[in-house]
Amino acid sequence: MVLYNPKDWWRLIFAFHKSDTFRRTFPGIVGVAIYTGLINYLEKEVLQVEFANTLNIHSLVGFVLSLLLVFRTNSAYERWWEGRKIWGSFVNNSRNLALKIDAIITNQNVKTIFSILISNYILASKDHLQNKANSQLLRTSEKYPSEYYASFKHLPNVVAKAMYREVQELKENGSLTDEQLLYLNLELKSFTDNIGACERIKKTPIPFSYNIFIKKVIFLYVFTMPIGFVQTFDYWAMPIVALIFYIFSSIELIAEEIEDPFGDDANDLPINDIYQTIKANVTEILE
Amino acid sequence: MVLYNPKDWWRLIFAFHKSDTFRRTFPGIVGVAIYTGLINYLEKEVLQVEFANTLNIHSLVGFVLSLLLVFRTNSAYERWWEGRKIWGSFVNNSRNLALKIDAIITNQNVKTIFSILISNYILASKDHLQNKANSQLLRTSEKYPSEYYASFKHLPNVVAKAMYREVQELKENGSLTDEQLLYLNLELKSFTDNIGACERIKKTPIPFSYNIFIKKVIFLYVFTMPIGFVQTFDYWAMPIVALIFYIFSSIELIAEEIEDPFGDDANDLPINDIYQTIKANVTEILE
Amino acid sequence: MVLYNPKDWWRLIFAFHKSDTFRRTFPGIVGVAIYTGLINYLEKEVLQVEFANTLNIHSLVGFVLSLLLVFRTNSAYERWWEGRKIWGSFVNNSRNLALKIDAIITNQNVKTIFSILISNYILASKDHLQNKANSQLLRTSEKYPSEYYASFKHLPNVVAKAMYREVQELKENGSLTDEQLLYLNLELKSFTDNIGACERIKKTPIPFSYNIFIKKVIFLYVFTMPIGFVQTFDYWAMPIVALIFYIFSSIELIAEEIEDPFGDDANDLPINDIYQTIKANVTEILE
Amino acid sequence: MVLYNPKDWWRLIFAFHKSDTFRRTFPGIVGVAIYTGLINYLEKEVLQVEFANTLNIHSLVGFVLSLLLVFRTNSAYERWWEGRKIWGSFVNNSRNLALKIDAIITNQNVKTIFSILISNYILASKDHLQNKANSQLLRTSEKYPSEYYASFKHLPNVVAKAMYREVQELKENGSLTDEQLLYLNLELKSFTDNIGACERIKKTPIPFSYNIFIKKVIFLYVFTMPIGFVQTFDYWAMPIVALIFYIFSSIELIAEEIEDPFGDDANDLPINDIYQTIKANVTEILE
Amino acid sequence: MVLYNPKDWWRLIFAFHKSDTFRRTFPGIVGVAIYTGLINYLEKEVLQVEFANTLNIHSLVGFVLSLLLVFRTNSAYERWWEGRKIWGSFVNNSRNLALKIDAIITNQNVKTIFSILISNYILASKDHLQNKANSQLLRTSEKYPSEYYASFKHLPNVVAKAMYREVQELKENGSLTDEQLLYLNLELKSFTDNIGACERIKKTPIPFSYNIFIKKVIFLYVFTMPIGFVQTFDYWAMPIVALIFYIFSSIELIAEEIEDPFGDDANDLPINDIYQTIKANVTEILE
Repeated sequence: MVLYNPKDWWRLIFAFHKSDTFRRTFPGIVGVAIYTGLINYLEKEVLQVEFANTLNIHSLVGFVLSLLLVFRTNSAYERWWEGRKIWGSFVNNSRNLALKIDAIITNQNVKTIFSILISNYILASKDHLQNKANSQLLRTSEKYPSEYYASFKHLPNVVAKAMYREVQELKENGSLTDEQLLYLNLELKSFTDNIGACERIKKTPIPFSYNIFIKKVIFLYVFTMPIGFVQTFDYWAMPIVALIFYIFSSIELIAEEIEDPFGDDANDLPINDIYQTIKANVTEILE
Repeated sequence: MVLYNPKDWWRLIFAFHKSDTFRRTFPGIVGVAIYTGLINYLEKEVLQVEFANTLNIHSLVGFVLSLLLVFRTNSAYERWWEGRKIWGSFVNNSRNLALKIDAIITNQNVKTIFSILISNYILASKDHLQNKANSQLLRTSEKYPSEYYASFKHLPNVVAKAMYREVQELKENGSLTDEQLLYLNLELKSFTDNIGACERIKKTPIPFSYNIFIKKVIFLYVFTMPIGFVQTFDYWAMPIVALIFYIFSSIELIAEEIEDPFGDDANDLPINDIYQTIKANVTEILE
Repeated sequence: MVLYNPKDWWRLIFAFHKSDTFRRTFPGIVGVAIYTGLINYLEKEVLQVEFANTLNIHSLVGFVLSLLLVFRTNSAYERWWEGRKIWGSFVNNSRNLALKIDAIITNQNVKTIFSILISNYILASKDHLQNKANSQLLRTSEKYPSEYYASFKHLPNVVAKAMYREVQELKENGSLTDEQLLYLNLELKSFTDNIGACERIKKTPIPFSYNIFIKKVIFLYVFTMPIGFVQTFDYWAMPIVALIFYIFSSIELIAEEIEDPFGDDANDLPINDIYQTIKANVTEILE
Repeated sequence: MVLYNPKDWWRLIFAFHKSDTFRRTFPGIVGVAIYTGLINYLEKEVLQVEFANTLNIHSLVGFVLSLLLVFRTNSAYERWWEGRKIWGSFVNNSRNLALKIDAIITNQNVKTIFSILISNYILASKDHLQNKANSQLLRTSEKYPSEYYASFKHLPNVVAKAMYREVQELKENGSLTDEQLLYLNLELKSFTDNIGACERIKKTPIPFSYNIFIKKVIFLYVFTMPIGFVQTFDYWAMPIVALIFYIFSSIELIAEEIEDPFGDDANDLPINDIYQTIKANVTEILE
Repeated sequence: MVLYNPKDWWRLIFAFHKSDTFRRTFPGIVGVAIYTGLINYLEKEVLQVEFANTLNIHSLVGFVLSLLLVFRTNSAYERWWEGRKIWGSFVNNSRNLALKIDAIITNQNVKTIFSILISNYILASKDHLQNKANSQLLRTSEKYPSEYYASFKHLPNVVAKAMYREVQELKENGSLTDEQLLYLNLELKSFTDNIGACERIKKTPIPFSYNIFIKKVIFLYVFTMPIGFVQTFDYWAMPIVALIFYIFSSIELIAEEIEDPFGDDANDLPINDIYQTIKANVTEILE
């Protein structure tokens, strides 16, 4: 995630950050402008035909397209924001679990094991979502050496397994009463719920038909536009059509990008920073 | 569900996948174009009448229609996404239940029974939603042979019945304390809640009046359009009206398709894959 | 609720079901057409005045009106869908409660009592929402004869009272531990929550001012429209204004109808079918 | 709240109820019409200037303004509806708490105390939200005489305090087990949650800048409109501009009114009736 | 937060509060007007060129821009409202926790400690969100002197740690049963959940690409507008373009401001007042 000051208008307008859609659609913008120039040349110089102005038709279709795109952006934004909420829930539940363990347990060894397991769960989840899960990166302990983690495919699950077993062991040796098991239940349960929710967002883009439909309509819209426009605007149609292409394709591009918020792009969620925060918080509380 | 790369614009624009609405509305597009040509021929050659241009009226109605369609799509999309969330909840709760059983129970037989029952619940739910529930496909065990499943109509319920009875038995023979019953409660309860929510989405399309109203307005809109348009656009009205038909009917078609997300279409949810994931996860944890 | 195939376009477009808004607004459509004809006659033949075209003003106002109507429909749809969710929750909680009772209790008499009480609760709720609550229709038992039900005004509450007392009795005679009371808590609680939520939807239409405002604007909009339109469209304004009246008043009509989803109309929720399903499920599990 | 039949179109269109925005904006409507007439007189007779028609500019701005207003109404409606949900939750939780107390407790005295306390809580909340909290109006009992209530500033809190203490006392004298405390927890907790949520809605109107911005734009919009309009519509601009003022200001007025739903206006929630219902229900169950 | 009467139209329209966007965009408004005047001078006097009117293009783009801005405002408003809900939850949970502690505990010392800790938690959270966390401002007690608070970085966490330890101590010395631990669980847990949710809102503005895109489009829109407009409106284009700049940039400005609702601006949430309310309530109940 790029950190930025949302109130610094001039910089945001004139800087062309590498994730700026202006930079990313630039080849398309140039291409559309050239195409519009060619159409003008063809109609005016070569064929010398006259077409009725289709501006009103394009207004009408532009309206539907705008609505579709804005709702598209909105639903992409909602996924992005849901992703952020899930990682916020990781923060909250890690803290609460650590605080509860700290209050209930007196044995420092056990506290340290939980501190390791919580951090490992978040690290494993982060890497799992970025397709680079690696059991070698997890912090090991005597009880859970690197071999323990290596034997499992779904890395977050194996950490969860260790957590549930630790809790059960504490219950069996009497450090935890039955009721305290329930006291910890919502936090324990939330880890698996959170990773599942992230997997859902990551693996399910918007429906296929909807996606191809929007792209086809943008294409049809922009490429039929010059036919009637050059009659009115002559070569001035070049920047106009290019501008409209810039706007519509940018909205779609932004939606595509924020739809899967767990990557490494400029717009993706700062899940690495969140992991560091959780690790620092949990260590401060438990170790 | 079709797996696709949402960033590969050219392929998505030019490939005509069988679920592409362009392919599915193609006969309609051709029909509308021909109809528009006929209207032009009639007005210009046969009757030689002149009509006032209705473009502004069509803009106005087009506006209402667009809003209706986009909200329609949006509510269909929300059902689709809710369906996805429910299946995500199946994943989470299966994992959590398996992890808890694994931690609490030491008897491998019991673990295996739960592994079978959880997988069976998901399989039965999947088939139930696709109207092909078949007790023969469920994994059997000594305790729950195929006769056990065959005696019930609502297949997911019969598996839930077995799960609740297993839990109760564990409680009665002392493997599970009363509090641990509560510890498992949210997961057990969620299975029935999830299948109920899927049934709700599946059995309740949008209200009847709303559906026929939208279809009637699309029809009236497209079939009155050429009357005034051919005055301005002559035979060029053919692609224009066809394009507008393509756009409006596609939005309605996509909404229809994603409204019931549990089928086998290109846009439907990958519930079979999710079942496989759950089965693999649960087996990894419990067996 | 009317069962229909949402993909059968031709039938939906050309059949005029009795709940079709086309049929219900037909007298209005004819009236508006005649009124438009009269205005034309007056302006053109009698007064021979010329008015500036108000199409742009009507576009502008039409825009606000469309937004208002679509949001109105949307909020009505959300109530309808919330109503459906509540009845889905009745299904889920009835099943879960039955499954839990089945697992915990061995005494068949008690199971049967719960089966009766659950079905009675749903039946009483259904009838209560349709203003025809009748304690005579409830299934009686030795313990809860028809006199028991007759003494109370709010029928669902009296069934809930019996359920809570049954549970308490089981606890007191030791068939249910204290923890199992908590185990059943969420299901028991949900019955009262659900009927309360239905009562809320039923008794609270959208705010009075909002409703009269929308109707007044539709009226002003449609009845001022011909004044300027007949200048451009002559007698052709008749079908045009009638069409616009059809569209705007239909949206309002549909919203009115689905706003209270517990009646007996074509668009209302199939709460009778849901009751039958619950009864069948619960009987299958418990009796 | 005004009770009305939403399907009685003619009455709603032609009756001018005192909360009708038509009546409330009437002076403004007349003022705007006169102002428009003056502008026409000035431009045409006095200054004899010609202005370019600004209809398109007003369309464009009218579009943004409509969107802003409709979203404004929508968010106001959501608060109103949330307020209604909270009072529905009061109904549900009062019933559930009464039903549980009725099942668990056999001592009629205690039942009566709870019946009094629940009703008092709702009454105190209602009056607190209408700024007329008065401990004199609460029903007293030997244990909680009027002096008890008089000593506290936040009236709902003092009733909650009594409820929590009653529950604790029951636990200490053994009428309530520890688990039954948990069994009652969600209902007890909900009372305070509900009053807090109502206070939130009541005390937080939409952000200040947003409110003044909308009012300024309506003002600028309506008062610049006649300048260009009178060129086209002459004195007919008077009803046109007045109509547009009526529509935009009504939407803002309705939003203002339903934003705080706990007052005594025609659009406010029937919280007094809900209080009566709760009192009747609780008395029927417990006394 | 500014307290204001939303129904006092004239004051809101004509007063120019320092947080009024009119005042804040005033330099921009003047600049845009001058720029428009210069363009007119250039086109008409210096270059004497004629451009086709781009009003329709600007309508089309204005439409997309309006949709984007209104959805932007809406999502900013939703964060603001969520922030308000979180602080409402602080109120509710502080009250409930205080009421429960008051009912369960008889030792006044312990009650006072909880009163101090709850108030401290809210104060620490408030200051933490405004980047001025200062352990010196917290109320100290014998058990938790200022040195206790000074040793931790994340101030709300250290107060939570003390709360959890107090609860555990009460459990260990028998003042609290195991079940009562669960009885307090939801309230204890909510403090950490709330501060986490506030941190999420504070630290995550809308995605970077989306923000720069909106600002770039507003800029392009306003600065290309005069080119075609001055042909029609001459120097009258100056107030028109300035007005449009005022409207679009104000919407963006308001969204920016309410997006992070925990500051000290006119539109920010009254979190200091809420803290005072909580402190007063908790002290009234516990001390």
